[in-house]
Amino acid sequence: MCESTAATAPDLDTLVARAGLLVESLPYIRRYWGKIVVIKYGGAAMIDDALKQAVITDIVLMRYVGMKPVLVHGGGPEITALMDRLGKKPLFVDGLRVTDRDTADIAGMVLAGKVNKDIVSRLNAAGGKAVGISGPDGGLIQARRKVHVVSSGPKEGEQADLGFVGEVTAIDPAVLYTLMEAGYVPVVAPIGVGAQGETLNINADSAAGELAAALGAQKLILLTDVPGILRDPKDPSTLMSTVRQGQVPALVHDGFVRGGMVPKVDACVRALQAGVPRAHIVDGRIPHALLLEIFTDQGVGTMVLPDQCCGGEG
Amino acid sequence: MCESTAATAPDLDTLVARAGLLVESLPYIRRYWGKIVVIKYGGAAMIDDALKQAVITDIVLMRYVGMKPVLVHGGGPEITALMDRLGKKPLFVDGLRVTDRDTADIAGMVLAGKVNKDIVSRLNAAGGKAVGISGPDGGLIQARRKVHVVSSGPKEGEQADLGFVGEVTAIDPAVLYTLMEAGYVPVVAPIGVGAQGETLNINADSAAGELAAALGAQKLILLTDVPGILRDPKDPSTLMSTVRQGQVPALVHDGFVRGGMVPKVDACVRALQAGVPRAHIVDGRIPHALLLEIFTDQGVGTMVLPDQCCGGEG
Amino acid sequence: MCESTAATAPDLDTLVARAGLLVESLPYIRRYWGKIVVIKYGGAAMIDDALKQAVITDIVLMRYVGMKPVLVHGGGPEITALMDRLGKKPLFVDGLRVTDRDTADIAGMVLAGKVNKDIVSRLNAAGGKAVGISGPDGGLIQARRKVHVVSSGPKEGEQADLGFVGEVTAIDPAVLYTLMEAGYVPVVAPIGVGAQGETLNINADSAAGELAAALGAQKLILLTDVPGILRDPKDPSTLMSTVRQGQVPALVHDGFVRGGMVPKVDACVRALQAGVPRAHIVDGRIPHALLLEIFTDQGVGTMVLPDQCCGGEG
Amino acid sequence: MCESTAATAPDLDTLVARAGLLVESLPYIRRYWGKIVVIKYGGAAMIDDALKQAVITDIVLMRYVGMKPVLVHGGGPEITALMDRLGKKPLFVDGLRVTDRDTADIAGMVLAGKVNKDIVSRLNAAGGKAVGISGPDGGLIQARRKVHVVSSGPKEGEQADLGFVGEVTAIDPAVLYTLMEAGYVPVVAPIGVGAQGETLNINADSAAGELAAALGAQKLILLTDVPGILRDPKDPSTLMSTVRQGQVPALVHDGFVRGGMVPKVDACVRALQAGVPRAHIVDGRIPHALLLEIFTDQGVGTMVLPDQCCGGEG
Amino acid sequence: MCESTAATAPDLDTLVARAGLLVESLPYIRRYWGKIVVIKYGGAAMIDDALKQAVITDIVLMRYVGMKPVLVHGGGPEITALMDRLGKKPLFVDGLRVTDRDTADIAGMVLAGKVNKDIVSRLNAAGGKAVGISGPDGGLIQARRKVHVVSSGPKEGEQADLGFVGEVTAIDPAVLYTLMEAGYVPVVAPIGVGAQGETLNINADSAAGELAAALGAQKLILLTDVPGILRDPKDPSTLMSTVRQGQVPALVHDGFVRGGMVPKVDACVRALQAGVPRAHIVDGRIPHALLLEIFTDQGVGTMVLPDQCCGGEG
Amino acid sequence: MCESTAATAPDLDTLVARAGLLVESLPYIRRYWGKIVVIKYGGAAMIDDALKQAVITDIVLMRYVGMKPVLVHGGGPEITALMDRLGKKPLFVDGLRVTDRDTADIAGMVLAGKVNKDIVSRLNAAGGKAVGISGPDGGLIQARRKVHVVSSGPKEGEQADLGFVGEVTAIDPAVLYTLMEAGYVPVVAPIGVGAQGETLNINADSAAGELAAALGAQKLILLTDVPGILRDPKDPSTLMSTVRQGQVPALVHDGFVRGGMVPKVDACVRALQAGVPRAHIVDGRIPHALLLEIFTDQGVGTMVLPDQCCGGEG
Repeated sequence: MCESTAATAPDLDTLVARAGLLVESLPYIRRYWGKIVVIKYGGAAMIDDALKQAVITDIVLMRYVGMKPVLVHGGGPEITALMDRLGKKPLFVDGLRVTDRDTADIAGMVLAGKVNKDIVSRLNAAGGKAVGISGPDGGLIQARRKVHVVSSGPKEGEQADLGFVGEVTAIDPAVLYTLMEAGYVPVVAPIGVGAQGETLNINADSAAGELAAALGAQKLILLTDVPGILRDPKDPSTLMSTVRQGQVPALVHDGFVRGGMVPKVDACVRALQAGVPRAHIVDGRIPHALLLEIFTDQGVGTMVLPDQCCGGEG
Repeated sequence: MCESTAATAPDLDTLVARAGLLVESLPYIRRYWGKIVVIKYGGAAMIDDALKQAVITDIVLMRYVGMKPVLVHGGGPEITALMDRLGKKPLFVDGLRVTDRDTADIAGMVLAGKVNKDIVSRLNAAGGKAVGISGPDGGLIQARRKVHVVSSGPKEGEQADLGFVGEVTAIDPAVLYTLMEAGYVPVVAPIGVGAQGETLNINADSAAGELAAALGAQKLILLTDVPGILRDPKDPSTLMSTVRQGQVPALVHDGFVRGGMVPKVDACVRALQAGVPRAHIVDGRIPHALLLEIFTDQGVGTMVLPDQCCGGEG
Repeated sequence: MCESTAATAPDLDTLVARAGLLVESLPYIRRYWGKIVVIKYGGAAMIDDALKQAVITDIVLMRYVGMKPVLVHGGGPEITALMDRLGKKPLFVDGLRVTDRDTADIAGMVLAGKVNKDIVSRLNAAGGKAVGISGPDGGLIQARRKVHVVSSGPKEGEQADLGFVGEVTAIDPAVLYTLMEAGYVPVVAPIGVGAQGETLNINADSAAGELAAALGAQKLILLTDVPGILRDPKDPSTLMSTVRQGQVPALVHDGFVRGGMVPKVDACVRALQAGVPRAHIVDGRIPHALLLEIFTDQGVGTMVLPDQCCGGEG
Repeated sequence: MCESTAATAPDLDTLVARAGLLVESLPYIRRYWGKIVVIKYGGAAMIDDALKQAVITDIVLMRYVGMKPVLVHGGGPEITALMDRLGKKPLFVDGLRVTDRDTADIAGMVLAGKVNKDIVSRLNAAGGKAVGISGPDGGLIQARRKVHVVSSGPKEGEQADLGFVGEVTAIDPAVLYTLMEAGYVPVVAPIGVGAQGETLNINADSAAGELAAALGAQKLILLTDVPGILRDPKDPSTLMSTVRQGQVPALVHDGFVRGGMVPKVDACVRALQAGVPRAHIVDGRIPHALLLEIFTDQGVGTMVLPDQCCGGEG
Repeated sequence: MCESTAATAPDLDTLVARAGLLVESLPYIRRYWGKIVVIKYGGAAMIDDALKQAVITDIVLMRYVGMKPVLVHGGGPEITALMDRLGKKPLFVDGLRVTDRDTADIAGMVLAGKVNKDIVSRLNAAGGKAVGISGPDGGLIQARRKVHVVSSGPKEGEQADLGFVGEVTAIDPAVLYTLMEAGYVPVVAPIGVGAQGETLNINADSAAGELAAALGAQKLILLTDVPGILRDPKDPSTLMSTVRQGQVPALVHDGFVRGGMVPKVDACVRALQAGVPRAHIVDGRIPHALLLEIFTDQGVGTMVLPDQCCGGEG
Repeated sequence: MCESTAATAPDLDTLVARAGLLVESLPYIRRYWGKIVVIKYGGAAMIDDALKQAVITDIVLMRYVGMKPVLVHGGGPEITALMDRLGKKPLFVDGLRVTDRDTADIAGMVLAGKVNKDIVSRLNAAGGKAVGISGPDGGLIQARRKVHVVSSGPKEGEQADLGFVGEVTAIDPAVLYTLMEAGYVPVVAPIGVGAQGETLNINADSAAGELAAALGAQKLILLTDVPGILRDPKDPSTLMSTVRQGQVPALVHDGFVRGGMVPKVDACVRALQAGVPRAHIVDGRIPHALLLEIFTDQGVGTMVLPDQCCGGEG
């Protein structure tokens, strides 16, 4: 006999309890089976190694239980790091970074050439089949320079040139369908192509919102570094777990939503307008936040949903 | 705001722990993704209501995480119950029940008309898409009368007529592929068709073994009411968690395997001979025994595997 | 030379006449090529062995000349026989049999486990490729308990509980398309599944009508034991060979249609309402009644057709 | 009511007898379902109008009951008629017509431009879907000039130039598969293309044999104006209903097979050598000879079959 | 070393210039990639051998660079030649040839049996994959006798019987799609089938216009023997390179368009009405006139286009 | 009338001559229709803007005339430029650059994030549909660290660590087939993934050779900055236009092939060994060198072909 494989009898109670947990995930698996879920991956979840591994595993698991995840990633810290090494000083207008040609190139290289491929390698190592692309590939993301109107100071009301920062004008999702049908998980670097073929940096949250809209996704999940939308930013217990689309303008106006949260909320609204049923702003610092969002009723963070009230499914 | 959906913040630690358990199942999901698993469903797991529901859920889950389960079921107690109501007395030769034409019909009705449809209804209610068939459907199971040689007594060595009990002569799995490709879980009543079109009862374990062999399944799992093969039938701690194909004759000869366990072990060997890599005799009295077998390294019960030693995967 | 195969010269005139008959069937073959024909199989044609064989052959022939037959069968006599053996006494309300849980189970077993599989085996033996299913399979027939309003007596106007007798609420024909596309002839036992998963007996004529409607069949044929609708039930020469949909209420009201003929006529009307162009009530006691219906202009029995008069095709 | 459609009750006995005949054809339909049958159409069956219509109907029927007929036709009389009108005198070497460039052109026009299209129109009118092509189309028939060795006279043993008469060097059946898969009946004019693109007349029997060989047909049927191979050409009762491939050389040598029968027998042998199981020389003067060959056990005419004796199927 | 293949160094400047020309064709290739172009082939381009070869090569090239050419051909001179040999005198009514049954047969033979197959052979020899068909094939062209109203003389205003000359009543393009999808270039002889199955000669320009309309072609090109529509027929410098659909009636009325140009212009208008964006009347005496039409901005000859003015693409 | 589009009559002679050139390309288009051609793009052709545009157009043209180009690119100068900006000093062992972790990352970013996307954008702007990927995507290029044996000096014979420079161990071409079948031109950055998921720089010539081998390409073309293999490096007139695979070792040994030409010649031999029929080292400084290689008999540069002598096709 093959003694080496004759394991000791397992502790049955523990095992049975674990099986029970697995079974509890069935309703969620059924709900999202065959559905597209667009995920914006960024913040702490891209820096901390354990969190990074958790996100990667979550996505591979989503793929294997029948969902179609599409990943959009940022890469701010790595861009800043390379700019520092190159001695480039960031320039700001109205609190917004001005992106010159060289900065845009650096960002493109870091995003599409490094961050994107790292994520792809990790997904592959975890058993997923990933392919990394960016805006130029298959004409995925067409964009134009974003116009910024200065909000205060001597130039108030004038248009400021923020350089090679773009906003999406059109999405051609064909290459994503090609990859998904062949079983690949697409990983998208948020770079757009302008009318003259120039590279434009796109905010990753906005890109995710546009992709979710164009793909008719079932869900948009934005990973961030805060618990969600808070009534009192200093008090996590004031988390708004549900926000209606129609509440958003007031929340922005009243200052509950500001800074980097604004493009996130805008991305949610953009996706909802296109028919995506649910959008989520989720705390990426919680391990397996993606799975928690998908496989529990409560979810984590803030869910933005259309105004017609209270459909039951999450 | 939509207060009714503003849930209290979840207990994150518990949730994260649960997500971690889900993630631990990923390697097993990957291993069996797209693979056929033939399951013999019978015994206590078909009687106790909670166990029944657990098996049903396990199979639906297997389907949703990408496996292709094929279910073969028995139905002994329900057959006996109907025979009792009809006042039929069982007849035995050499300890084996003699099945006359009428008994075979009754068994066929109970198996294909009641037990099979109950399982199908339960699978559908649990979110699976099941279709129940039996041997005549699409010519699935062709069979001939089984010849029994009397092993003792005055007629020792003579052939005894056991009636309409059959052994499989050929499997045409086309209808199973048709159903599985359309996303259905096939549920098979173990009834064969003889050369003259007569209905023959087939031992469910044997039918499962033959189907696993014909389908090139990745795994055969036989649910039973004992912990597995025991060195000492009275002492569960003597469970043999691994048995090599080549050990089986000695185990039978030495009496470690006897009674209803013999056809189970034979079914395992039959499947292994056709290239099925692993066959399992599993204690169906443990809740979620199927998931435990598939989603843990230890498994539960006895694994029968080919003689070439010790491939790591379970 | 191979003398054994050197046959005597055939009688050419006979052969040529036979070929001519074959050729006469061409227009009918062309008309129904690729079309779905739903057949309710019951009555004498399921009891007399020669008639049974004729129906089976007719269906296999229909399949081979390009039609897509779907068979729905009854099974009354066999159900009654088993109930007799079990000593169950039928109970009637208002002339309708009350079906308790046990009776429904017995009917289910006989229909799905015996009659259905017998038909499948016979079709296979005749060279067809048949698969037998019933309501639970693939969620084919969803049903609810039928409400009966007592028509006379002290409880007139009250609702009576007829037990587990159902009426169809929804058909999901997907499993039928799956089987037909793979070349199988579906054989359907008329059992429905209620909202709680309970088994409900469905009148086979009604089930056939609903299936014809859901499948957009080209024809519905109901085999019965009378020549069709007769103006004088005692005089076969009063057969109404054609009845318009709009005539049906008056025929029922005036008593020309009554008893078991009512659900048949209702099934015809149900199918016509869903766009099925022709429905037929055919005398199953005539050998090859199915072929006669399809391969002759006169047809046999009563044809029910929409009110717009007199489209030429039969 | 719609009196106009209320037909008189049919004569049931006649109808039932006719249905019985239809049913007798089932085994033959099953045998050839999905199979390719190559038919050489020529002789009386192309001249007599009733026979012509019978052949056309037979082929449409074959198509509708699931066979894949491929038609190859001759056209001798029409070619001769046009040559007469053009005042061209046929020239003979060794009893074989010498085909000059002009004659080959005339034959090509008559075959591909008139006879072929007449057959196509008739098949379409009878409900078939036919497409007529010839050797150049899709490179179907490649050929080279046939070499003739003078068999007697002063030039005995010398090669004689018979002009633009060809023998097949290669078949590219792709265009036939394209047409058959789209449901068309291919009708082929026996014209080959030489290496220099020149048109070459091919004997229609030979072309049929080569096509049957290249397509892996299930059957080759050559329609002719004699009962088959006769031991005594003047006595139809000496018909050889079966001839083994190995008998052919002796039959030719001994003069039982001569004249126009030689290329027919050669075509049969060519097809058998390529694995076609049966080849038939059939009397096209019998109405529906094609159906009789396919739908009866005796067949009509002479069947040529491989030397291994006596497989049962015809 | 393999000296025989060691070529002398090429004259690079010449080669580079040639590559540049190839590159200039790219925008045209992209514009017509995957598009259907219907070409009427006739006149000088079918007589002069060098022009013939140029047309053939042009079409094969079109096919290989991704277009889907469909060829419709005439054959007037060859028909006249055969009629001369047969001693048939043409008869005219109102300047139009009267086509008796015999003449129609002769035309059919020449067109479908000779001209069509010659073109197919040449296309195949040039590396195309061509299949030649005509109106009866797959029911491609249905037609009826054309009614002619006598325009002058004693019978003015009466209908004259022109015999077997037809006008298209319906096109069934299915066989063309079947052939194109399999990669074949369809070559169509302009013969129609009447309601009684009779063969009717169709003007090739008209047939091309109808096919372009039915296929939703991207372009219709009619090859002719004049430079296009001329303001002064004697002065090629008065070529109208562009004509709007709405100008056509006046051009006919004023006599700028007359004779054989009338059916050409009508065919263009017919195609435009069905949505074909551009139709061209091109001088087939210019070598590679087809390529010049497609691969240059100027085109050659007269382009007829819809009334909405001046879309840029040619 | 629409005067604005009434162009002056074109200069026909010029146009006809141009059409003739187009036609001359037909044999080459036919030869490579549907075939995979792997192209290593680098050197001057990636720096000079006019040359760059010519390569881009050539590839789009190849795609539109039916070939399947796969592009592999280098990026040396841009890598060096970024390293200079970062103040990194290259380190050499035995004349080979040592690549530390940071250098490998920089190279990866430049190649996959900048050069790759620039090429993709240019191809898209020229009307191609391109998607840029690199080794990690879909597990395309698996690699291991390359072992270098010091060839001279005190450490002669010892293994030197060159850092993150890899050699290909396996190619999984699935993602390339997925993209090509959907009509995309794949553009590949030569980055491999090691067993631990680490990024390894791969020589672009080697990567191209391996991809050609794995894809069963019809042709491998390496663009370089010299005329090809020269007998006297200083004398372009000593170009060897043809080299047999078997000559390569002697050419290296005798010093005719050295430096950067060695990996090119090795890549050719690697591809030939895997059955690629022809490999070419082509002077990328010649405009449209790719088209010249494919669309002329002489080709440009050096062709490496298998040892069996002198197959005619280029």
